[in-house]
Amino acid sequence: MSEQVRVVEVGARDGLQNEPASVPTAIKIELIERLADCGYDTVEATSFVSPKWIPQLADAEAVMHGLQRKPGVRYPVLVPNLQGYVRARAAGASEIAVFTAASEAFNRKNINASIDESIARFEPVLTQAHADGVRVRGYVSTVLGCPYQGAVPLTDVVRVAARLHALGCGEISLGDTIGVGTPGKARAMLRAVAEAVPMDALAVHFHDTYGQALANILACLEDGVRVVDAAVAGTGGCPYARGASGNVASEDVIYMLHGMGLQTGVDLDALIATGQWLATQLGRGNGSRVGQARGAAA
Amino acid sequence: MSEQVRVVEVGARDGLQNEPASVPTAIKIELIERLADCGYDTVEATSFVSPKWIPQLADAEAVMHGLQRKPGVRYPVLVPNLQGYVRARAAGASEIAVFTAASEAFNRKNINASIDESIARFEPVLTQAHADGVRVRGYVSTVLGCPYQGAVPLTDVVRVAARLHALGCGEISLGDTIGVGTPGKARAMLRAVAEAVPMDALAVHFHDTYGQALANILACLEDGVRVVDAAVAGTGGCPYARGASGNVASEDVIYMLHGMGLQTGVDLDALIATGQWLATQLGRGNGSRVGQARGAAA
Repeated sequence: MSEQVRVVEVGARDGLQNEPASVPTAIKIELIERLADCGYDTVEATSFVSPKWIPQLADAEAVMHGLQRKPGVRYPVLVPNLQGYVRARAAGASEIAVFTAASEAFNRKNINASIDESIARFEPVLTQAHADGVRVRGYVSTVLGCPYQGAVPLTDVVRVAARLHALGCGEISLGDTIGVGTPGKARAMLRAVAEAVPMDALAVHFHDTYGQALANILACLEDGVRVVDAAVAGTGGCPYARGASGNVASEDVIYMLHGMGLQTGVDLDALIATGQWLATQLGRGNGSRVGQARGAAA
Repeated sequence: MSEQVRVVEVGARDGLQNEPASVPTAIKIELIERLADCGYDTVEATSFVSPKWIPQLADAEAVMHGLQRKPGVRYPVLVPNLQGYVRARAAGASEIAVFTAASEAFNRKNINASIDESIARFEPVLTQAHADGVRVRGYVSTVLGCPYQGAVPLTDVVRVAARLHALGCGEISLGDTIGVGTPGKARAMLRAVAEAVPMDALAVHFHDTYGQALANILACLEDGVRVVDAAVAGTGGCPYARGASGNVASEDVIYMLHGMGLQTGVDLDALIATGQWLATQLGRGNGSRVGQARGAAA
């Protein structure tokens, strides 16, 4: 393998929305700007989900307005429905992401809707985004397991991913939300989806709850995926608390990719420094092993 | 893959020898007995290296004498030279391991000998072990990098591994001592060694300093290795300290293997309980992600 891998940095959104600490808007803006300076081409910025659901990101407008955008960098934001889309666009977002789960039970429990109903809710968003020339990513969560229903049938994952793609999501991110997947299952899931959606429209999104994230990413890289989500410092759940469930740390992913001769465009040293800085801001340990090891050497 | 993988539990030796905490002999014995009860067929018990070098394992005789051995379980011990061999045998050890590094600089710095000199030192051990019908494992450390010389030539790794095998080591454990390896390099290293030593005589031994251990193990499994070293609770360096450098956690390895349909004979729930108990004894967090996640659920 000697190619380019696009790492989508989700720390400022998926990371911070699940951190117990409340982060000042200025720190969020500095984080996003530092990440863009690391060389990412995509830094997910925030979420326009209702502050009632995600109070940590209630300052989405302020973040988008305060952000000094770097030319060539994409700053997508999460949008749950048409109302969120209107807010996001008013705040200057030029790229969005919508989300649903492959698990019926997860959808019912989290947004009180079936999978089909949840998709129906953001169909108007996709229509409007298409009319506006706004690029849309689709997140499918619980692709390898669900906290409520346990196993998630592969056919459901494929159906939801294919539906989002058909509705106009240019990229589908397949998320192991609870981090229970192992490489064989991750690979089988990716292969099944890739029969319905082109591989170059797929991304993988692993949480490191059971320490399996890098191995799962490796298995999916071997099967051809070239877009990987990750969060600086492994944010998204405190790594030192019981039941840690953070995103895979970007530093660890990029260390692996560069070690394998794959290019990401990201400056690992700058990223490690950003992760150390963020861990300090959050008042917790660094969830990246590379960050821990290099931090000690620094 | 649907096969048996032998996981060699090294927590009581490679784990504890690098922990800052000093562990009472009774706890070491309980640890080894609990690990055997988890279903391992090999539990490395202790080291007969001079207490001057490794004070944490100065009670090797007491551990071996106190141990209630389980029929069918192997309890190898580390031996540096003929003197250590005599001590180990007097204490009842029926299986041993010798060790050297693939890096010249590491050998010179750590045991003040060249690679060839270090091998010459334990040649009499191998001769005696052969005469006694004692099984010998050979550890080769720094196979993917050295803290002193940096890169380690593959040819040195192959030469040392082949030499140990030719001298009568029935199994060669290839160790990424400082955890810097990534999957492509791990695979290339294993492939090179496997051209000189049969794959079924090889084991892999990864430290998780940079979070790469499971991905490296996956790459090596794909190339055919079926013996993996691991340490319960990721012992061997405090996981929450700067510069953490523990062994890969057995719980995380076995979770992955079982998830891939590979059999280990180890009861994961019992192992998780043992890891939680050990972390408490050591007065530190659990270095296993699976242990952290399942510990929260328990």
